[in-house]
Amino acid sequence: MPRQRIAIDMDDVMAETSLKFLKNLNRLFNKNLCVADFKGKYWLDLLTIDEYNACLKLVHEEGYFLDFPVMKDAVEVIQQLHDRYDVFVVSAATEFPNSLKEKMIWLKEFFPFIHWKNIVLCGDKSIISADFLIDDHPKNLSTFLGKPLMFDAIHNQTITEFQRVSTWKEIGSLLLK
Amino acid sequence: MPRQRIAIDMDDVMAETSLKFLKNLNRLFNKNLCVADFKGKYWLDLLTIDEYNACLKLVHEEGYFLDFPVMKDAVEVIQQLHDRYDVFVVSAATEFPNSLKEKMIWLKEFFPFIHWKNIVLCGDKSIISADFLIDDHPKNLSTFLGKPLMFDAIHNQTITEFQRVSTWKEIGSLLLK
Repeated sequence: MPRQRIAIDMDDVMAETSLKFLKNLNRLFNKNLCVADFKGKYWLDLLTIDEYNACLKLVHEEGYFLDFPVMKDAVEVIQQLHDRYDVFVVSAATEFPNSLKEKMIWLKEFFPFIHWKNIVLCGDKSIISADFLIDDHPKNLSTFLGKPLMFDAIHNQTITEFQRVSTWKEIGSLLLK
Repeated sequence: MPRQRIAIDMDDVMAETSLKFLKNLNRLFNKNLCVADFKGKYWLDLLTIDEYNACLKLVHEEGYFLDFPVMKDAVEVIQQLHDRYDVFVVSAATEFPNSLKEKMIWLKEFFPFIHWKNIVLCGDKSIISADFLIDDHPKNLSTFLGKPLMFDAIHNQTITEFQRVSTWKEIGSLLLK
């Protein structure tokens, strides 16, 4: 029987994208917000649209995608998934051409066991076919024909239409039993 | 009814990759070979392995993917396909991290009507789901679950297991009737 395939999103799933966003926010606007402050809240509950956009603009800067911290337990659990499944990293990245090579460098640094053949940098993920998709964006999960798993993030906390996961340990319990 | 999807490879399908390869070969080894010389032949029928590898090595140079000529009639036919189908460009590119941004720039220059959402830069194309795949490599076509169309190229001339197409006009006749 062929191995099942897991497609895994990068931003806010493998990489602590929101953590970096918050660090920039705190630095630019002299605030002291942390991820926990957003429990049950959306970005714009605590930020003005100008503050949000100022941080979002930084995404276009060269080097932005090189220094994200890795999500807790992601390396260990994805390594174990990789032993049992065909793991593909599927990142919506073509909107940001500078991010493309940087994402490859980041993956090589933190997830060297993931082959370039198993990396997909795309836009609309509805073209992806796999058994599982772990992603934080409803737009990606809603068109997916396999089993969608929504990774908890600041921007998706009130969404209940997908099975939710909050940590990589939880994903491990679910897919490695 | 949702529109059908066409996935289109870049190298040797949208872009004259082999033509550039031959130009480098002629320049480096003082030859005068053209694509027609390879009718019914493989690269290594006319090249030594050292000559072939010397040209292949250039692929890693910065800027290599920026100046490919566009395949004849590709712009016009893909524009018409784009009006009737959901067109996705699907390029095996993650092996060459420098190529990623360059491929985006090239597409923007010659195919500005293709949205970043419809561009996929990947490795193993078996993760792609679409109704048609136009590609020159049997390895990509053989795992595809939709209708595969093999675009004629020097390295695939003896392969008959897929429906073959030789020009973009031919693809137009097939998919735009």
